[in-house]
Amino acid sequence: MELLKALNWRYATKKMNGESVLQDKVDAIVEAAHLAPTSSGLQPFEILVVTNKEVKEKIKEIAYNQSQITDSSHLLIFAAWDDYTAERINSIFSYTVSQRGLPSDAMDDYKNKILGLYTARSADENFQHAARQAYISFGIAIAAAAELKVDATPMEGFDNAALDKLLGLNEKGLKSVTLLPLGYRDESNDWLVNLKKVRKPRTEFVTEVA
Amino acid sequence: MELLKALNWRYATKKMNGESVLQDKVDAIVEAAHLAPTSSGLQPFEILVVTNKEVKEKIKEIAYNQSQITDSSHLLIFAAWDDYTAERINSIFSYTVSQRGLPSDAMDDYKNKILGLYTARSADENFQHAARQAYISFGIAIAAAAELKVDATPMEGFDNAALDKLLGLNEKGLKSVTLLPLGYRDESNDWLVNLKKVRKPRTEFVTEVA
Repeated sequence: MELLKALNWRYATKKMNGESVLQDKVDAIVEAAHLAPTSSGLQPFEILVVTNKEVKEKIKEIAYNQSQITDSSHLLIFAAWDDYTAERINSIFSYTVSQRGLPSDAMDDYKNKILGLYTARSADENFQHAARQAYISFGIAIAAAAELKVDATPMEGFDNAALDKLLGLNEKGLKSVTLLPLGYRDESNDWLVNLKKVRKPRTEFVTEVA
Repeated sequence: MELLKALNWRYATKKMNGESVLQDKVDAIVEAAHLAPTSSGLQPFEILVVTNKEVKEKIKEIAYNQSQITDSSHLLIFAAWDDYTAERINSIFSYTVSQRGLPSDAMDDYKNKILGLYTARSADENFQHAARQAYISFGIAIAAAAELKVDATPMEGFDNAALDKLLGLNEKGLKSVTLLPLGYRDESNDWLVNLKKVRKPRTEFVTEVA
């Protein structure tokens, strides 16, 4: 399987060489993220693609000065809904039934169940749930980058609140959850590139209930 | 890209036909999940592969009677660590340095930083973080299944506490987070198979910061 080869090839690139990723590859990675499944199809997150150098410099400062942020050509930011609101849920269901050519009330029973469930939860519970959906997409984007031989570094280490403020995410009802800089490895200056990829033994990872 | 084709082919299969997925395909999907990146490489989750019919029947009862649980041939259960403990963190770092042929204290500075960070957090905060790592792997497993033309249904809708109890996960320091039944679609009896896959317009999903 191509994907296994790609996953064995990839690693959390520590030093990138500044080379640009072609736009059609970036588009394909974002499209893979876009196609990720989400709970009830609500797609409760967005992606920002940062290429602006000054903005990347500012993000680097609030992300432990990790060099991949500025040495990547495209920095993907996964940002989840801060809450599931009735407006957001209604809007997605309305779009879905129209796209499927169904009567406007075709999914109302299911929608009302979802509305009852989500609007009864706290904003933080809903955000945590939305963040998990973003992580499904994050995983798929990582796989897509690897399949295209684009290097990528999954990152959680940054000041989320500062990034939200910098990019005005709160005003959009979003909170940043992860970063994925895209670029190319600088093999001669990356301490990790030649170290063995380690995963715990399969016997400690998988249990069969047969 | 093969992955985009696969992601367009897949859908959250609602009715499976009972046909068995070959073991080598199941192994490849589990291996893709195993290769998923995780924060600091801690791999804070495990997968259970349930093929036992009686166990699947019991799981179905605590998962809104979703038929894919028993019509799938293999049910993957993603279960995250209930906490990051010093023992677990030390064990992963110790294994990693030995696998890489490094001196046993080679990663101690980094390990101690991680130990300080994680052991200061509550078990619930740590579990939430571990669960997110499991979702990266869950996303990659979904992509892997699709690439192998194996149908899969991502599921969060089940009684987590009841499942943990049924499988003795608490005793292993785990909590179930998601299910992924693997099998084959029953095209003539699946209401979703012919409905259009809907994702919100790309303009509402991606923002460029150029």
